[in-house]
Amino acid sequence: MLIANTDFPRLDGTRCLVMGGGGFLGVHLANALIRQGAVVRAFGRSLANPNELDERVHWSCGHFEDPAAVAEAARGQEIVFHLLSGSVPGHPGQKPTSDLETSVLGTLRLLDICNVAAVRRIVFASSGGTVYGPTDRYPIPEAAPTDPMSAYGVGKLAIEKYLALYHHLYGLEYFALRIANAYGPLQSPLKRQGVVAAMLDHALAGKPLEIWGTGEIVRDFVHIDDVVSAFLLAATYDGPHRVMNVGSGTGLSINQVASDIEAIAGTGHLERIYRAGRAADVPVNILDISLITRETPWQPQCAWHDGLRSTARWMAARQSARLV
Amino acid sequence: MLIANTDFPRLDGTRCLVMGGGGFLGVHLANALIRQGAVVRAFGRSLANPNELDERVHWSCGHFEDPAAVAEAARGQEIVFHLLSGSVPGHPGQKPTSDLETSVLGTLRLLDICNVAAVRRIVFASSGGTVYGPTDRYPIPEAAPTDPMSAYGVGKLAIEKYLALYHHLYGLEYFALRIANAYGPLQSPLKRQGVVAAMLDHALAGKPLEIWGTGEIVRDFVHIDDVVSAFLLAATYDGPHRVMNVGSGTGLSINQVASDIEAIAGTGHLERIYRAGRAADVPVNILDISLITRETPWQPQCAWHDGLRSTARWMAARQSARLV
Repeated sequence: MLIANTDFPRLDGTRCLVMGGGGFLGVHLANALIRQGAVVRAFGRSLANPNELDERVHWSCGHFEDPAAVAEAARGQEIVFHLLSGSVPGHPGQKPTSDLETSVLGTLRLLDICNVAAVRRIVFASSGGTVYGPTDRYPIPEAAPTDPMSAYGVGKLAIEKYLALYHHLYGLEYFALRIANAYGPLQSPLKRQGVVAAMLDHALAGKPLEIWGTGEIVRDFVHIDDVVSAFLLAATYDGPHRVMNVGSGTGLSINQVASDIEAIAGTGHLERIYRAGRAADVPVNILDISLITRETPWQPQCAWHDGLRSTARWMAARQSARLV
Repeated sequence: MLIANTDFPRLDGTRCLVMGGGGFLGVHLANALIRQGAVVRAFGRSLANPNELDERVHWSCGHFEDPAAVAEAARGQEIVFHLLSGSVPGHPGQKPTSDLETSVLGTLRLLDICNVAAVRRIVFASSGGTVYGPTDRYPIPEAAPTDPMSAYGVGKLAIEKYLALYHHLYGLEYFALRIANAYGPLQSPLKRQGVVAAMLDHALAGKPLEIWGTGEIVRDFVHIDDVVSAFLLAATYDGPHRVMNVGSGTGLSINQVASDIEAIAGTGHLERIYRAGRAADVPVNILDISLITRETPWQPQCAWHDGLRSTARWMAARQSARLV
């Protein structure tokens, strides 16, 4: 868990709405906002880990596609953290039309609601792992070309452009954080949320590790506490940059992740099942994080092996609890 | 009118669909495709100039939002030219949500239909005047940052990204032409289609010229025949570039356009009414056309004063016909 730090802004009494507040990032962020003194409402379809959400967070169960419910949640809010997505990156059955309707169109409706509700600022969870698409320049700076290979990525990019438009037309303040592959406690191993959670779950149960493609694709893994820190800083950042990468700045192959998980879980070498690669998977994704580290006090604080170890402990406890 | 030229590909028997075939660019393009030997269907809400459409063009009246009508039009087509937009650039009452629903979502439905119909290639009319947004680097190359200031521009950019996605996921060939400010015969002076048509119409009627802002904004005016030529070449281009600018490569201020129109219309100095500037208007837009001139035989053929003169003749004839 994130330790409240003098580098992070106090948000005493600031009314914050976390859209997608029942999810992996949402619960961590809502709790962190509470620790900084904010008055927090979390909105989402469902709350995967009810016991993990700070009891001071006001939980609103609702659908993103229900404008009345969203308007009710947004009323009186000062900062809106928008973490909702319509689809899952790389899902083979992804339909660009349905992603556009739920994610992008839903976001524009949210922005219209924020305008009416006089929300001051919106902080958007964009996707550093998908908006850039294939590139041979690493690490990837924010100014790199953006050629997403998934409906998820195109939707995230389109939302960034619409945020800039709403800022231009209506003065709505926004910041978009292009997040790398987040991992950590509360990430579900079952919902395609992340390869770390899925492989840890299998490893701790002694099951084979499933790997998409050859396992040689490289990703930038960033601990959820570091992602949350970036959102806290974006809540009060007032510099000129609207879009910033949030990652570790380093890359690990999926095979390396598998080996590190075997070592930390103490399983020895597990069977690996290699499945067909996915069209949405770029070969390498490593984010250049020099902008956010220059513009804010943010630094990735959680080293990979430490983060993986604490995540493994959480996952082991989760499995034990399920067995009881 | 475009003169059939050996530089342009013959399209004998090729089945072509022009989405938006009843509009300014659509009629010119459909007629040119006929001259190149194609079998042409034009689809649109309405046909502004029925007498101008070559009688060999099969006209289909339908709404873009009607998937059954679009599917019927797309059946058996080899190349689809997509010229439809949901909104008008810079319209003050623009709602990003409605533009997204009609233009972007409608286009994804069209792409799904094209996939089912086994269409080989889609050539998309993107917008060089709006996708880039403000910049201080002129002329603007295709690789420049894209930060649109209008819902129209964000929609065009999002469609380009979705075209790339459909190409990646489903193999649909596409080319996107980022067109500057097109002008020429058949452009309506009444539908915010272009400042040249609107000012010519007023000048020839001896009415004051209406100018948004100070008239010092600079635009890249390209004659409709040159735009049509670019579409013909994009129909068979098979090089590596998917997105190309189409403009004159030079800029004119709106005040300069007004003076040129006064000179060509022989009106002497007309009263100018300056209206409030529009949020969507970038100060300068001049496209770098070196990519398309390098990759294809395309060159802008129609010099500004010649194009303006022939457009003025057409507009004068239009006004006379209305008076009869």
